[in-house]
Amino acid sequence: MSEKLKYGMVGGSLDAFIGEVHRKAAALDSKFSLVAGAFSSSPDKSKKTGEALGLDPSRVYGSFKEMVETESELPEDERIDVVSIVTPNHVHFEPAKLALEHGFHVIIDKPLAFNIQQAKDLKEIIDDTGLVLALTHTYTGYPMVKEAKHYVNEGKLGNLRQIYVEYPQGWLATPLEEEGDKQASWRTDPERSGAGGAIGDIGTHAANLAEYVTGLNITHICADINTKVPGRQLDDNASALLKFEDGATGVLMVSQIAAGEENDIKLRVYGENAGLEWKQSDQNTLLYKPLEGPHQMIRTGTGYVSEHTQKNTRTPAGHPEGYLEAFANIYVAFHEAVVDHQSGEYKSADDYDFPDVVDGIRGMAFVDTMIESSKSETKWTPIKL
Amino acid sequence: MSEKLKYGMVGGSLDAFIGEVHRKAAALDSKFSLVAGAFSSSPDKSKKTGEALGLDPSRVYGSFKEMVETESELPEDERIDVVSIVTPNHVHFEPAKLALEHGFHVIIDKPLAFNIQQAKDLKEIIDDTGLVLALTHTYTGYPMVKEAKHYVNEGKLGNLRQIYVEYPQGWLATPLEEEGDKQASWRTDPERSGAGGAIGDIGTHAANLAEYVTGLNITHICADINTKVPGRQLDDNASALLKFEDGATGVLMVSQIAAGEENDIKLRVYGENAGLEWKQSDQNTLLYKPLEGPHQMIRTGTGYVSEHTQKNTRTPAGHPEGYLEAFANIYVAFHEAVVDHQSGEYKSADDYDFPDVVDGIRGMAFVDTMIESSKSETKWTPIKL
Amino acid sequence: MSEKLKYGMVGGSLDAFIGEVHRKAAALDSKFSLVAGAFSSSPDKSKKTGEALGLDPSRVYGSFKEMVETESELPEDERIDVVSIVTPNHVHFEPAKLALEHGFHVIIDKPLAFNIQQAKDLKEIIDDTGLVLALTHTYTGYPMVKEAKHYVNEGKLGNLRQIYVEYPQGWLATPLEEEGDKQASWRTDPERSGAGGAIGDIGTHAANLAEYVTGLNITHICADINTKVPGRQLDDNASALLKFEDGATGVLMVSQIAAGEENDIKLRVYGENAGLEWKQSDQNTLLYKPLEGPHQMIRTGTGYVSEHTQKNTRTPAGHPEGYLEAFANIYVAFHEAVVDHQSGEYKSADDYDFPDVVDGIRGMAFVDTMIESSKSETKWTPIKL
Amino acid sequence: MSEKLKYGMVGGSLDAFIGEVHRKAAALDSKFSLVAGAFSSSPDKSKKTGEALGLDPSRVYGSFKEMVETESELPEDERIDVVSIVTPNHVHFEPAKLALEHGFHVIIDKPLAFNIQQAKDLKEIIDDTGLVLALTHTYTGYPMVKEAKHYVNEGKLGNLRQIYVEYPQGWLATPLEEEGDKQASWRTDPERSGAGGAIGDIGTHAANLAEYVTGLNITHICADINTKVPGRQLDDNASALLKFEDGATGVLMVSQIAAGEENDIKLRVYGENAGLEWKQSDQNTLLYKPLEGPHQMIRTGTGYVSEHTQKNTRTPAGHPEGYLEAFANIYVAFHEAVVDHQSGEYKSADDYDFPDVVDGIRGMAFVDTMIESSKSETKWTPIKL
Repeated sequence: MSEKLKYGMVGGSLDAFIGEVHRKAAALDSKFSLVAGAFSSSPDKSKKTGEALGLDPSRVYGSFKEMVETESELPEDERIDVVSIVTPNHVHFEPAKLALEHGFHVIIDKPLAFNIQQAKDLKEIIDDTGLVLALTHTYTGYPMVKEAKHYVNEGKLGNLRQIYVEYPQGWLATPLEEEGDKQASWRTDPERSGAGGAIGDIGTHAANLAEYVTGLNITHICADINTKVPGRQLDDNASALLKFEDGATGVLMVSQIAAGEENDIKLRVYGENAGLEWKQSDQNTLLYKPLEGPHQMIRTGTGYVSEHTQKNTRTPAGHPEGYLEAFANIYVAFHEAVVDHQSGEYKSADDYDFPDVVDGIRGMAFVDTMIESSKSETKWTPIKL
Repeated sequence: MSEKLKYGMVGGSLDAFIGEVHRKAAALDSKFSLVAGAFSSSPDKSKKTGEALGLDPSRVYGSFKEMVETESELPEDERIDVVSIVTPNHVHFEPAKLALEHGFHVIIDKPLAFNIQQAKDLKEIIDDTGLVLALTHTYTGYPMVKEAKHYVNEGKLGNLRQIYVEYPQGWLATPLEEEGDKQASWRTDPERSGAGGAIGDIGTHAANLAEYVTGLNITHICADINTKVPGRQLDDNASALLKFEDGATGVLMVSQIAAGEENDIKLRVYGENAGLEWKQSDQNTLLYKPLEGPHQMIRTGTGYVSEHTQKNTRTPAGHPEGYLEAFANIYVAFHEAVVDHQSGEYKSADDYDFPDVVDGIRGMAFVDTMIESSKSETKWTPIKL
Repeated sequence: MSEKLKYGMVGGSLDAFIGEVHRKAAALDSKFSLVAGAFSSSPDKSKKTGEALGLDPSRVYGSFKEMVETESELPEDERIDVVSIVTPNHVHFEPAKLALEHGFHVIIDKPLAFNIQQAKDLKEIIDDTGLVLALTHTYTGYPMVKEAKHYVNEGKLGNLRQIYVEYPQGWLATPLEEEGDKQASWRTDPERSGAGGAIGDIGTHAANLAEYVTGLNITHICADINTKVPGRQLDDNASALLKFEDGATGVLMVSQIAAGEENDIKLRVYGENAGLEWKQSDQNTLLYKPLEGPHQMIRTGTGYVSEHTQKNTRTPAGHPEGYLEAFANIYVAFHEAVVDHQSGEYKSADDYDFPDVVDGIRGMAFVDTMIESSKSETKWTPIKL
Repeated sequence: MSEKLKYGMVGGSLDAFIGEVHRKAAALDSKFSLVAGAFSSSPDKSKKTGEALGLDPSRVYGSFKEMVETESELPEDERIDVVSIVTPNHVHFEPAKLALEHGFHVIIDKPLAFNIQQAKDLKEIIDDTGLVLALTHTYTGYPMVKEAKHYVNEGKLGNLRQIYVEYPQGWLATPLEEEGDKQASWRTDPERSGAGGAIGDIGTHAANLAEYVTGLNITHICADINTKVPGRQLDDNASALLKFEDGATGVLMVSQIAAGEENDIKLRVYGENAGLEWKQSDQNTLLYKPLEGPHQMIRTGTGYVSEHTQKNTRTPAGHPEGYLEAFANIYVAFHEAVVDHQSGEYKSADDYDFPDVVDGIRGMAFVDTMIESSKSETKWTPIKL
């Protein structure tokens, strides 16, 4: 832990949501220090946020450009190692590109970019520079999600047959964006959110979770995308039939108008020999359902789970870990990669357990394909990367 | 209860499954007496079953034809009032038709018939004779399913937006039909089960449950039907996007290869103002999720549920009622209709709360449309009745 | 099933609760026919009940004395085999005694009698006559309770260490007895209920459940009994520390003023090697908690549970069985014993799985000891039989 | 947040458990910086821990005495503000006393001290110095525990009647202390743990939770304390009947030999008008059970909970918060008090929501009374402070 990394944040002013989540996730394990920030496109707001966070005022910047450029000229042992990008989607690409071009590693909230071309451009820069980029698909940070992946990898399910993934929310059941809600406002605005509403905001999480655990890519989509709240500009409800590699089929359901639902992302995977079930509302339990014998409740913090899962756990079984700990697991894996990079040992993101630029491209392709499929009268639309 | 109805059973020999369920459901409330039976196409098997059930040997028949014809010539106060049909699907239509033509009311396991034409023919006979026919879509018999319908009817959800219905089972995850399992054998055999496998066996239950609670008919289907177990003759896994009347959309998921799953039928309905959730694995709880305020756990046996729901309940809250009680509720409603018929007060099945011949036709159309849609390259296939 | 037993009921008029439960439990498996009854101390009420139940008016009696005496003089193949007693506690002993003295087998709602002396007297008659007496401690009828007992018997837990049993109800949180509620009225009346309120009504169930599953008798009690609702004549809330045979310790908690609770009887047993948990609110699941490895969800209706448990099950896993099925399991076991008795094969109740007169005596001793202990300033009071 | 507090830690070397929990809880909200430590009584171990944590080696001390004395002589803006004590129980008092005497605020793991006299001595120092001392009774940090207290305070339950609190664990079901397990070793050693085993380790948590939510003190105890694992020196299983102020009664159950149990602390409170239930295994749900109407699931992160509860929440409903967040809530409240102290606004711990020295004394008295009661033949033993 002598390798505490210094980071600067883009976005995340005091009234934002995900910025504070990133800060807490980064802080939890004392592996990162927030030392700089361009917290808002409003320099005044940025300044106030920096002050509230106890930052050196000289490192609170009025724009991400200023931050990246100024920091890159500081002495090596003083300047930031990492840029954390937590802005709305339309401000993902530019700061990420600039940061990478100035030699900073990047951790960025999902989706990776505003459109797939931007995502591909970022991959090119990563390929050229060899820098580290992590994408915070939070749910893959949960210990029991990692254990689910482990069960699949170990072959405990045999060939996979059917996959259900869902993410129902209810917070946009009313036209919140018309009532001045900041989160609702940008997330339903195509200028800031991109082509996808619910499909981008939570659909990409669901798709990523399914692909992460199963190790299978979605190949074809048959989608039905709706906007249920009159006047809303982007989709708020979407369902899709899925085809995965290796003959597996599936269903994806996401909604932001599922009245009363919180953030109930849930994955079920069925193979020849067993089923698995994980859901955020009981995040520390993985249900393992063998063909014969009783269901088993695999639990976070126990001694019988895999070593890798244990590594991603902080407390004994029964002392629940939650969303911030899952989020922090991504930061920890990213930290490991960056430290390895600094010591010359880093080869590629594949050696670490965090979502990366490839997941980011897949996410953008997922959004595009959902939209294309929904408009199409043909049943199946292939995912094109 | 002086109006205890006498019934004869078609099918349901000792080694069958659903016949015994019908007998227990009919017996529970002491409203029916089993007095006759043609329990098997094997007269010997029928005889042994009748003996085990304590029936008068003279009323244990070698065929349903014999039963219907013989019983119809007994004195009115002696002969059966009702025929209960619990055979595999390919032996639904003939005995139902014959029974109705001889003036007997009919209660019949789902699906109503082997194909939609048969179903329509039965409707014609019902329309002509004015007799009572009930179809045992069990799940609509649960008190909390009835309460869910009540909530929708009362407008507590506002206009409905999104509906998820699912019925995962795992019992056919292996080729059980090749191992001599009687249930698996006929249910995967197109000669006895009909055109649908999972979609007929449990898909019709799921579709019926969704339509019952929401009061909305499914109008269009976009289905993906698979046979996951090599060599199986019928589908064992199916998913579909749905369109309902009034702009509601939905998803239906059924599987018989969802390893480890039992009979986890579950319905979620979301409207403008609230969501509802019911599942058989927690059958006495209905989750009501208003937009504002905490979720509420509506419970069977409480004083605050609707009068009709209370009428369909036998024990105080916390003394769980289950599958047989739900089944019995259909028998009770059917009993009520038959008794009314006998006293000349019966008008139509619409005045009673049991699934009827119209549901039966819809079920057959559902199966046909699922198959047609799955074969089609076009996304949406309308349900044709 | 040719051995369908005829029974007469004492108590259970139309406005009673437990009588109808007994009737449904007896009817479910078509092993009993209700042919006679003395349903109320009011002959008129009895008559009306008999009529509603479709009984031959000549066998609806004005008193249990009349029923027992008249029936005993009917021809053997016509008269009742069994008397079912479902009256309030103060009318348990007399009809049971009379029925036994006239050669009828008896099934009786718990508690067995009004006081321990009566219970002992009944045992004496049983010992003398060799007749069958079953006591409906419902909860031991649940398949997963039987499976729990099986796990203990098989030694899967090793020596038992700690036992928690609880039965919280909330229905008497207000002075319902002052508002004319019939159930509340007699259950809180020492003249009709006996010395115990909650401890008799539900405490005996809890104690019986713990002893049934563990196979260990409670030997010492340290109780705190309260009456929380002002003006109530009997206890409505009680807790006790317990000592069992073989060094196991435990806690019993029962309440009828636990606002909002339904009938949440729950048992937890911990041994050297594993723990078990069962509760009525999830009645078809038995949690098995080994020292090492994940918890297992043992489920009713599966193929991996013991043969005896399977025998006490009617539907496949996932089609929930409930309270009435548990109740019916006691009737079925009683039926088996009576039929064996009739064929000369019956030896003693020990060979069957139903609560008997010894459980009844233990129940009465439990109530007496709870009261004695609660009044005592000494910590431990031994149970005296 | 400009008021980031500097703290030094006593105990918490790399192989300890609770030290790392404190560090993460302190780090989460970026309100504390770890700048000094005496992490072990072994100077070498302390040094290595400090190194791993990235501390300035000059502030890693070989003993708490050295730390407190050296730090107190540093310039005011450089030295620590706070001492965090995370040692085994026998090393609580001395460092706490020394720290307070040198003007440092103290946050300390429970139980407060090795015995009640030490606890009282600490209170005296607090009273004299006016410094801030917080005790980490973690469970009171959960948002839904705070909401439960709020419901009680608002009178939604009316007068309280019955309280059940339990904390079953299974990790000491085998003689782990004989196998070199560090945690088991000191927690079962009277020289290091104090007079209580399970009753000190988790019993104090349970008692504190009950008193915190109800606002009622336990006044009398009737306890049964056991040591179930042969050869163990301290109790590992304990149950008690309780009397609270104002006529409420209760039961406390704690066990460390409840095979298979994790950390399932649970509280149920019943009043005249409603019941409440909270448990760590579903930590973000508070069940509210009114006399009339359905149970309600009160949830962390919703808009309808009290302002104070919202203040103790970091993520929206459905993004689960867990143990570390609860722990951090105590650090945050302690931070608030210390900052107020520094600005002269602090009056007493009563104005803040963290467990303090009075809770600490009550905890020690609880342990003593449990032991005294368990040895006594008299039923009730009053708690003497």
